[in-house]
Amino acid sequence: MTRQVALPDGGTQVRAAGGQKLLDAAGQVRELLDAMVRLPVGTEVAEELGERMDGVLELLRGAVAEEREMVLDPFGERGEDYMDRSPVSGVLNPIAPPISMRMDGPNRVRTTTRLGLPYQGPPGRVHGGWVATLLDHLMGYAAGAVAQWIFTRSLTVDYDHAVPLFEQLELSAWVEEIDGRKIWVRGQIEAGGQVVAQARGLWVPPRESQPEQS
Amino acid sequence: MTRQVALPDGGTQVRAAGGQKLLDAAGQVRELLDAMVRLPVGTEVAEELGERMDGVLELLRGAVAEEREMVLDPFGERGEDYMDRSPVSGVLNPIAPPISMRMDGPNRVRTTTRLGLPYQGPPGRVHGGWVATLLDHLMGYAAGAVAQWIFTRSLTVDYDHAVPLFEQLELSAWVEEIDGRKIWVRGQIEAGGQVVAQARGLWVPPRESQPEQS
Repeated sequence: MTRQVALPDGGTQVRAAGGQKLLDAAGQVRELLDAMVRLPVGTEVAEELGERMDGVLELLRGAVAEEREMVLDPFGERGEDYMDRSPVSGVLNPIAPPISMRMDGPNRVRTTTRLGLPYQGPPGRVHGGWVATLLDHLMGYAAGAVAQWIFTRSLTVDYDHAVPLFEQLELSAWVEEIDGRKIWVRGQIEAGGQVVAQARGLWVPPRESQPEQS
Repeated sequence: MTRQVALPDGGTQVRAAGGQKLLDAAGQVRELLDAMVRLPVGTEVAEELGERMDGVLELLRGAVAEEREMVLDPFGERGEDYMDRSPVSGVLNPIAPPISMRMDGPNRVRTTTRLGLPYQGPPGRVHGGWVATLLDHLMGYAAGAVAQWIFTRSLTVDYDHAVPLFEQLELSAWVEEIDGRKIWVRGQIEAGGQVVAQARGLWVPPRESQPEQS
């Protein structure tokens, strides 16, 4: 059983819903994140930055939904909202780096990205946690082509070489084996034509979603 | 061999260097990240948000250091800058959630945190990648108590139960075994008194840093 993965669309749905300006603002907040880690501690603009941020937060205060209200059902009527707010691939979540997913065969997903200073671990390298995050997210997508609703059960990442900042990363993930409720997935990151990190992991649907097998 | 881990200090060094206002601004940008994922797509404030963000970015344009200049040597004279900009525990990096690390015995680190909507994976749960990120970061710290300069070589995370958003998470990591250059580390996350995720991993120093053993 395979199905089309509900890939993020780089903002198409958001635009259709009149969200172009919000999308643009999310891009500006990404720029702000990058600038924040490049400001010297003693920067003279800190005070004015604080005043301007006061204004931004004041503007948003009455416009945001309740925290609990935003815990969304990804397969409910606001499913696209949910995906758009993902910390890894959500166009509206400024934590998410620029990622454009695409299918690359059945149960196989590919994407590219390029990470900047906000994601730095060792000098000049992507933080090991973010290496795992990119892989977990992509592998979950590949597993999601098999079962609609699944959780990571176990993930192993092997860090073979440095994962560089500022350079294009090629990510791929594919379902390797399906054994009952168990979906085994593999993933990898390439940089400069070399595999720099590899992962394998196990995804399972919750028991209640497949009562016939529980 | 053990040494005191250079734990993030929650801003003490930044304050001493005159960075209180920048620290405050980083806190405001954290609030902004939280607000961004709670704005409805059709929000009426998007246009004014964009205009205000234009002003913020314009203010910072001349004040930020070059991207490449900020690839810092963590053990050089700007080492504290480097730690303060970590995507997981850096007080000046708004992507980093609020984390206050502390030693809890030799080669053992503890911390607590509470993650909000920007870190959501499945509804109401922390994204699996961020679960791995928190563990990798803390475990790297524990390994860092053994060797000054180390890289993650392999990390396995077992996701036993849901890791809840909005609730206090208790994280710990400790060195389990040292075998030559290999440092084996374990880590776990507890929520509501239950272990919800566990990890084991291997850290190694680069060969050039220990020429006597290479």
